[in-house]
Amino acid sequence: MTQTADTDAPRSPRQGGGVVISVDAMGGDHGPSAIVAGIARSAEKNPDIRFIVHGPEAELSRLIARKRDLAGRCEIRDAADVVTMDDKPGQVIRNAKGTSMWSAVESVRAGEASIAVSCGNTGALMALSMIRLRKLPGVNRPAIACLWPSRNPQGFNVMLDCGADIRADATDLLQYALMGASYARNGLGVERPRVGLLNVGTEEHKGRAELKQAHELIGAAQDTGGFDYVGFVEGGDLPSSRTDVIVTDGFTGNVALKTGEGTAKLVSDFLKEAFANSIMSKIAALLAMTSLKRLQKRIDPRRVNGGVFLGLNGMVVKSHGSADATGVSAAIKLAFQLAQSGFQDRLAARVAEAAASVEDARALTASPTEGSAP
Amino acid sequence: MTQTADTDAPRSPRQGGGVVISVDAMGGDHGPSAIVAGIARSAEKNPDIRFIVHGPEAELSRLIARKRDLAGRCEIRDAADVVTMDDKPGQVIRNAKGTSMWSAVESVRAGEASIAVSCGNTGALMALSMIRLRKLPGVNRPAIACLWPSRNPQGFNVMLDCGADIRADATDLLQYALMGASYARNGLGVERPRVGLLNVGTEEHKGRAELKQAHELIGAAQDTGGFDYVGFVEGGDLPSSRTDVIVTDGFTGNVALKTGEGTAKLVSDFLKEAFANSIMSKIAALLAMTSLKRLQKRIDPRRVNGGVFLGLNGMVVKSHGSADATGVSAAIKLAFQLAQSGFQDRLAARVAEAAASVEDARALTASPTEGSAP
Repeated sequence: MTQTADTDAPRSPRQGGGVVISVDAMGGDHGPSAIVAGIARSAEKNPDIRFIVHGPEAELSRLIARKRDLAGRCEIRDAADVVTMDDKPGQVIRNAKGTSMWSAVESVRAGEASIAVSCGNTGALMALSMIRLRKLPGVNRPAIACLWPSRNPQGFNVMLDCGADIRADATDLLQYALMGASYARNGLGVERPRVGLLNVGTEEHKGRAELKQAHELIGAAQDTGGFDYVGFVEGGDLPSSRTDVIVTDGFTGNVALKTGEGTAKLVSDFLKEAFANSIMSKIAALLAMTSLKRLQKRIDPRRVNGGVFLGLNGMVVKSHGSADATGVSAAIKLAFQLAQSGFQDRLAARVAEAAASVEDARALTASPTEGSAP
Repeated sequence: MTQTADTDAPRSPRQGGGVVISVDAMGGDHGPSAIVAGIARSAEKNPDIRFIVHGPEAELSRLIARKRDLAGRCEIRDAADVVTMDDKPGQVIRNAKGTSMWSAVESVRAGEASIAVSCGNTGALMALSMIRLRKLPGVNRPAIACLWPSRNPQGFNVMLDCGADIRADATDLLQYALMGASYARNGLGVERPRVGLLNVGTEEHKGRAELKQAHELIGAAQDTGGFDYVGFVEGGDLPSSRTDVIVTDGFTGNVALKTGEGTAKLVSDFLKEAFANSIMSKIAALLAMTSLKRLQKRIDPRRVNGGVFLGLNGMVVKSHGSADATGVSAAIKLAFQLAQSGFQDRLAARVAEAAASVEDARALTASPTEGSAP
């Protein structure tokens, strides 16, 4: 399963410096050709990346041979099986060994690649990543961090958890704050990120009990975590400039993410319909082409393609299942930036540093009546 | 506090048929002049509405006297105090008696008006409404239902709860389904509404335990409730045509609502910036004016202004605090439609009909070990 197929390659990915990215070529909606096209686009733009590509060897060899920019920069790992979008995480784990997704994560585990990228089934990818890479010491629930177009100078906010786990207690939310701040620092270059906790209002008395507790914990961790805590934020702040990192549980984060994407899509569709409405408006659309293209680029979900798995012993980027070459290339770019910045080690250090205070907080919140059971 | 000030009126609101709407003139961001302007706009468009207006008498008399369309159609109820946006619900309830908000709800309780409209503090308005109007028999948690621009023929989806209560168990979610379907039928004219339950995926195995249980309950109530259950829906379905009613707890609903509004605002702002970018694009904007205005109207939050409180013995519409005359007039229009359709009685009948099966469901899910306590 792990033989080296790309015998023409003058050197293996590990030799000669640069960043090695492990790419799952299967499981996306557009098949391996879109993914190889995305790899080629990234390879052309960035000479410092090399790739280990996972999937059916014969097909991948053919696709890769056609791309001049990929000559000598790809190693193929044969994997005949594919995890589909309909597979349930439990089933996947039992039968994963021959799949391209397993193989892609395995390259990170073995230290051959710095980071893995997959367009496949999110639940299965998270389950496989947790089992093979294991959780970072001190992390209870890993999270998926997403980028959200915003009015901030860096153009994006980080939101987590976007759906790794439907639950999160107060100490999980504190860890999300630490991990999200680390991501904003290393992935977006925000030196001292501002962190907000998502709630139904900004007043301190609002929200569920675990949010009030997390409010205290995150407020107390500002200096250890190297961030500024701005307190509770609301759904309307996701695209705002009030904060750089938005912390929430994976249920709420997933609903918010999909609601925002759906709304942006609705407005764009209405805009297209408006411009197709009359001859006058069609002429206007032609005149405004450049401006409209700039707008489209600003809100294009492919530009912010890549949910990053945080809290594991190894980095994994989840690309949209529907990603085309542009989307795949954006996910690879993000993976490269994170690998280049040494994000994994910094995050691990930050979490370890905070783990002691998390344990203290847990001890404080543990039930003091445990000893009184009959 | 409840004297009749409008002595010039040839007849009181209750005489002569039509719908009487109780309007809280205070508590909005733009003060009573915006609210009286909205009332006047509705009065001009619809001769069948009369109003009881609550607030400081001298100021309201002056504002109302200036509007020709309001002559003889407004009764003023003097109320010197105002509930502000910063007041906490608990405080409001203790000191509410002299406020315009209390007075506005009181008119519905006394049967003088069919429905109340307020731009004030949502939490305070819900708390006051619950205390004065009381919950409908069979309803555990009242909900706030909002309209969401969608690709449906009716142009909107109903979502509830949008923030009345941060919690909801499975039977609450069932009641939301029943009440939301009734609202879609009477408020939007959808004969047999399709109901979806908001979750992080459409597969049956996903989501929290109470969602799986609600999934069963709502599925079983389709015929009693006169709706079709489409199963789990995701955040991206809020603006879609897959469903007419989206059921969720008030925490998730509130975050989704504000995320959607914030995203739509971001895209519109980016669009404006795009058109202001060059001379060419400015000319294009002029040419496309009509089309862009049509787009703006389609996504204008003022058009869908009005959260409806469901599950009380009386109807209350919560308008946006920032509503201007157009927004207030939209909320009054919605209130008129609901009053006209006899929605309150139909909803009460539907909930009563379902109450028995809800009780059955509760009995089924109640702990069978209650009798084994020491």
